[in-house]
Amino acid sequence: MKKINALIFDVFGTLVDWRTSVAREAELILRPQGFQLDWLAFADAWRDEYQPAMEKVRTGNIAFCKLDALHLRNLDIVLERFGITLDETLRQKLNLAWHRLEAWPDVTAGLNRLRTRFRLAPCSNGNISLMVDLARKNNFPWDAILGAEFARDYKPKPVVYLSAAEAFDLEPSQTMMVAAHSSDLAAAASVGLKTAFIRRPDEFGPGKGEIDPECTVDLVANDLLDLARQLNA
Amino acid sequence: MKKINALIFDVFGTLVDWRTSVAREAELILRPQGFQLDWLAFADAWRDEYQPAMEKVRTGNIAFCKLDALHLRNLDIVLERFGITLDETLRQKLNLAWHRLEAWPDVTAGLNRLRTRFRLAPCSNGNISLMVDLARKNNFPWDAILGAEFARDYKPKPVVYLSAAEAFDLEPSQTMMVAAHSSDLAAAASVGLKTAFIRRPDEFGPGKGEIDPECTVDLVANDLLDLARQLNA
Repeated sequence: MKKINALIFDVFGTLVDWRTSVAREAELILRPQGFQLDWLAFADAWRDEYQPAMEKVRTGNIAFCKLDALHLRNLDIVLERFGITLDETLRQKLNLAWHRLEAWPDVTAGLNRLRTRFRLAPCSNGNISLMVDLARKNNFPWDAILGAEFARDYKPKPVVYLSAAEAFDLEPSQTMMVAAHSSDLAAAASVGLKTAFIRRPDEFGPGKGEIDPECTVDLVANDLLDLARQLNA
Repeated sequence: MKKINALIFDVFGTLVDWRTSVAREAELILRPQGFQLDWLAFADAWRDEYQPAMEKVRTGNIAFCKLDALHLRNLDIVLERFGITLDETLRQKLNLAWHRLEAWPDVTAGLNRLRTRFRLAPCSNGNISLMVDLARKNNFPWDAILGAEFARDYKPKPVVYLSAAEAFDLEPSQTMMVAAHSSDLAAAASVGLKTAFIRRPDEFGPGKGEIDPECTVDLVANDLLDLARQLNA
């Protein structure tokens, strides 16, 4: 394999468990207000609005805006569907649930091992402040925050991957995209990046994540510690 | 003072001693090739081309490019002036001298104290990879790399300061620009940021740095540890 100099990471699902984290945050905020609902279903419903909202940006239907802004539009849709009305303070607080997601247990240790050999950055659709808050909460040792807000477009548009490699002064082939989603890796590979698939079998609920990649990838790992072993880090 | 949430930093001169570092790097690379010259004068001459090169970008005369690319154009000018011809490998290696600058002695400890209370990012004209390399070399604990490459223009253009505040989801007044140069702070203040002046009396040679700000600032500090004390960090 050609010399890899930097690893860039998908974050939602690959590094952090958005589903149980959002469910927990929703319960923490909404239950004291007297609401009782299926919190995991609420998290799933919110996430279901994620791709359609970004697609409006990708197609030029709406101008680029931070994922926080898309999340807020999506939250309003989901709150209405669940019959919930919130004051502005709680609405904003709930929207920032995505800034408080918890990492899968291997991630912080894995990133710290990988950091000894590679430059590391998130290449997420999440905005910079969201990535900063997740890094502070989970001690992610990033060299830089790259991804959608830097590129001003959303994955899987090629500019998001290519701008991350370019920020590190690298050819795409010197940069490895790490993700738990085949669609993300296929897009990265199509513009020349190396790819590593991470198994996150429980991302969408127990046994409901992707187990094996549906596209050709350079590496498959069970978690980031396994990735570090395979990359001799 | 209104609540400050993030500190953004000038880097060349404020955090790192570019002059003696570039002189040292030039000597390390050029002396084994048989060149003998005034290494500090070489560093000064290279730096003298810095503002004119960026001015071409600011005025739209040339498209935005990374500072590394401007440094290389400037290096060629200075090499010719000093009568030096280098092969491509050494020319590129010397150009990356700016990625190997050493911090003033207070900086790493100061940033680590400030980090406990504030989000931190460089807001430099240096490109992202340059900032990443300086952070790795000197253990700067950045939350994100903001500044010229993120804004795609050079300080003191307002977009560079404003895009840094906006990346952190902050009003300009919640963001403090920290620099050893009055011109940088005046530009930041003119678009609403808070400002802290750091004394670096030896930046351009012993006693040749700015001792006191030439514009109104919110704080004046002797170094980053003094800044941390004044900000209760």
